Amino acid sequence: MNKTYHVAIVGATGAVGRELVNVLERRGFAVASLRLLASSRSAGCSLQFRGDTVPVHELKERSFDGIDLAFFSAGGEISRRFVPLARTAGAIVVDNSSVFRMEPDVPLVIPEINREDVHQHQGLIANPNCTTAITLMALYPLHRAFRVWRMFAASYQAVSGSGARAIIELKHQVELGAQNLPSIPSVYPHPIAFNVIPHVDLFLDDGYTKEERKMQNESRRIMHLPNFRASVTCVRVPVYRAHSVAVNAEFERPVSVDEAHEVLAKAPGLELVDEPRSNKYPMPINVAGKDQCQVGRVRLDCALENGLAFWVCGDQLLKGAALNAVQIAELL
Amino acid sequence: MNKTYHVAIVGATGAVGRELVNVLERRGFAVASLRLLASSRSAGCSLQFRGDTVPVHELKERSFDGIDLAFFSAGGEISRRFVPLARTAGAIVVDNSSVFRMEPDVPLVIPEINREDVHQHQGLIANPNCTTAITLMALYPLHRAFRVWRMFAASYQAVSGSGARAIIELKHQVELGAQNLPSIPSVYPHPIAFNVIPHVDLFLDDGYTKEERKMQNESRRIMHLPNFRASVTCVRVPVYRAHSVAVNAEFERPVSVDEAHEVLAKAPGLELVDEPRSNKYPMPINVAGKDQCQVGRVRLDCALENGLAFWVCGDQLLKGAALNAVQIAELL
Repeated sequence: MNKTYHVAIVGATGAVGRELVNVLERRGFAVASLRLLASSRSAGCSLQFRGDTVPVHELKERSFDGIDLAFFSAGGEISRRFVPLARTAGAIVVDNSSVFRMEPDVPLVIPEINREDVHQHQGLIANPNCTTAITLMALYPLHRAFRVWRMFAASYQAVSGSGARAIIELKHQVELGAQNLPSIPSVYPHPIAFNVIPHVDLFLDDGYTKEERKMQNESRRIMHLPNFRASVTCVRVPVYRAHSVAVNAEFERPVSVDEAHEVLAKAPGLELVDEPRSNKYPMPINVAGKDQCQVGRVRLDCALENGLAFWVCGDQLLKGAALNAVQIAELL
Repeated sequence: MNKTYHVAIVGATGAVGRELVNVLERRGFAVASLRLLASSRSAGCSLQFRGDTVPVHELKERSFDGIDLAFFSAGGEISRRFVPLARTAGAIVVDNSSVFRMEPDVPLVIPEINREDVHQHQGLIANPNCTTAITLMALYPLHRAFRVWRMFAASYQAVSGSGARAIIELKHQVELGAQNLPSIPSVYPHPIAFNVIPHVDLFLDDGYTKEERKMQNESRRIMHLPNFRASVTCVRVPVYRAHSVAVNAEFERPVSVDEAHEVLAKAPGLELVDEPRSNKYPMPINVAGKDQCQVGRVRLDCALENGLAFWVCGDQLLKGAALNAVQIAELL
């Protein structure tokens, strides 16, 4: 295991890109060289990696020459155009966009859940949707114990899930609001400060959004459960970092809170925080910046036969994106 | 109908109390005299009513002499102690606390839903929980069409639901946060600025909160559906005013979005805002200060047999409290 890798990050200056640089350093990933790529707008910037100043270059067709491993986190359009070029150049790609996630020959992987799927890759592995990844960190261990077949969920999604510009937009709206000045939203269709917006990603014909639909479709692939059903409402909230999800899940086998606690306490990448009488439950401010997701508020669902209600939080830039991507690369 | 009433408001300086004064004026309620009552701390303040400055008096045992109608909105402890005194003094009471809501001889009323129940009163009518009232404004018309039997819901509750002090707490935390200073929460057990807290009201032994349990119990009474089941997660969000609820409801009869739209568009006190392709859906900033609740994001639930998913918002100080209380009084 002395091999080292020539690594590229596409979208290096974005919210997830910056975390990718941090996670590679923090986990001691075997980086031989690091090539940071972004739009021409960001070229000329630089980021710190292991004490070195690494320049950001403009993404071009030849950017992947000599690269072994490329992380993509610059949106669907960039992935659609440049992932094939990176593969042709011989790089293995871990893609954070939704473009390839449902393609049968592209593994969609959460290492704690379906690490074995990674080995079927043909030069491209997809990183799951952030809300899905965080939800499944708690749902999958419960599924292993009780066999899930459907869930109802509502999300509370942080603005950093929309990238660095959305963080600035919320900050700006809060400042203007303090002076009673109006602000014109640009990232979101409506003001997000002191508001919640039931609209994440595009609307589909059936009234669900793409984000809501991903929760069902990606969960099916990752858990290998083609008939899993998920009815989800995805909502943006004025939180800077870390997503939360309220879940009602129905299982085939009888459930108990004690058993659920036991299973969740042992689950990898997950912390059980469930002492409501002491005001201890997962919250965005407590998981922001942390690798582990947190689950709590576990209770017997009072409207399902074999059901559990629970609440899960996770840093969507880490487990929901950068951390999971690097964990995938570590499996290779 | 030329009769006028001597009216008292207990908790007049609170968030709901102030709205009660506004709503009485705005709706032209037949007020002969208005007595504003609060704790000794607030005595000496005054509020404007119909152009007059009305002083706030300290609530005392004899405060209800000569009063025909008393609105209580000062918390459970005050209601428990003073509602019996008001009734003994001959006043009819509309109580906003949860103390009497489940008592069989106390009607629990949303005028658009079960106005006929008000006539069974024995000097006391209970005003429902705010989240329940807002949810039922959309759920009940659908129930009339399709017969609901259970729902799953997650709430996004504004801080003003916790009273005027919580509004100040959020404002203060945002200001301190802008200067990177920490703040010590007092109304809530944790910071609410840029956070969400899955904890509204006290925890019960089964892991649900009282707020979550109210949604099932009060819905049963108001809709006259003793077997209705509701599994709810109630969450406080950094919004100043207006609650939102994501609902998945299951019905006995087959449902369609078109029929649901038709029913909701005609429902009293409710506005259908459901053009997602034009970014039109209910949001707290759009219903704050409005009498009408809004419903949107109506879709066929993809995990229920005869199910609808929808999103409802309402001003919890108005329909969730003051407006509903005055509407009850108007029925008398």
